[in-house]
Amino acid sequence: MIEPKNHLILALDVIGIERAAKVAQLTAEYIDAIKIHWPVILERGLHGVRGLAELAPVIVDAKLSDIPSTNRVACEIMRCSGASGVICQGFAGEDSVRACVEAGGDVYVLVEMSHPGSLQFISKHSEEIARMARNVGASGIVAPANRPEKLASYREIVGPSMQILCPGIGIQGGNPGDAVAMGADFEIVGRAICSAKDPGLAAKEIAQAIASKVRR
Amino acid sequence: MIEPKNHLILALDVIGIERAAKVAQLTAEYIDAIKIHWPVILERGLHGVRGLAELAPVIVDAKLSDIPSTNRVACEIMRCSGASGVICQGFAGEDSVRACVEAGGDVYVLVEMSHPGSLQFISKHSEEIARMARNVGASGIVAPANRPEKLASYREIVGPSMQILCPGIGIQGGNPGDAVAMGADFEIVGRAICSAKDPGLAAKEIAQAIASKVRR
Repeated sequence: MIEPKNHLILALDVIGIERAAKVAQLTAEYIDAIKIHWPVILERGLHGVRGLAELAPVIVDAKLSDIPSTNRVACEIMRCSGASGVICQGFAGEDSVRACVEAGGDVYVLVEMSHPGSLQFISKHSEEIARMARNVGASGIVAPANRPEKLASYREIVGPSMQILCPGIGIQGGNPGDAVAMGADFEIVGRAICSAKDPGLAAKEIAQAIASKVRR
Repeated sequence: MIEPKNHLILALDVIGIERAAKVAQLTAEYIDAIKIHWPVILERGLHGVRGLAELAPVIVDAKLSDIPSTNRVACEIMRCSGASGVICQGFAGEDSVRACVEAGGDVYVLVEMSHPGSLQFISKHSEEIARMARNVGASGIVAPANRPEKLASYREIVGPSMQILCPGIGIQGGNPGDAVAMGADFEIVGRAICSAKDPGLAAKEIAQAIASKVRR
């Protein structure tokens, strides 16, 4: 489980592992974990994860949604490459999610997403997926910060010990600190930090904004 | 669009790009395309795709299910790396799938999967996802061969020009040729070829079994 010190996860939405590593170094002091996603992975696989992991725990946002045997192998490779956790799609079903959990490491299950298309299928099953995530022993769930009104019901479903991660802060519509104030453990911020002229300063300001709204 | 000569797509379910390339070489004569998935990608990203693409068109089975902007960038990187097509999750919603189509290349939309967990959420929306795939101009859909009774209704939804790709042959339960006999364009075979003592011979025999059942 990631330690919620700053309640901030950096979404390293950067193309090129060198640039990605630079942004991670500049912001390491203000973040609790680093989330990498497709564009970084496609370039050179998980090469570079070990370097990032020296700065903060790395979560691979693969949105895994494969059959159980493939999910399991993918998670094992991620762990061997130095990643601490993975994000998988709950809609792939309980057996697929369980395969990730059994592979070890932190597993965060997507129950809803921040884009309009999420409402078409995924969001119709969000609470059911959250219950399933709890039942299979996942570390937490991922739910969008731009629909903060639903966070309370997710918390009720998953209980106090599972973590709730919220993307959708900044450019996608949410304000820093709002999701944590509503009960999330982490806010995931990408473009607002990675595209800033000074990523370190942007991360610092967002971490401060979140800190000012944390429930004590 | 892939040309259906043998109606057979090789699922290169192999760890290690060198071993993957070897299996592709041994089977190239009997297959119409190569599908690569997570374990291959995680190792070194899309390094090696260009070599495979000299043998047959490469489809990246990323089961993309991200927000539209990320799906788009991922597809663009895949195309630049020499891949012809991508498999995405229709469950992520119309905007996410449209982003893949707009990035160019062949887009195949998963409407259902072969594992039990598919029945929990995805399969409840399969026909709606197939209609959406047609509406956004996808090249085809991916539906499991181990539920062949549904292929006729998928064909009715997507029409004659879209392609239907069927995984789930061999170890997952389907018999070679059954899905093509029911109207699919391609059968996707992985372990039954990759784990065979002689992958070339296994591919040849499966291609022959399919050919014997093709509707003329």
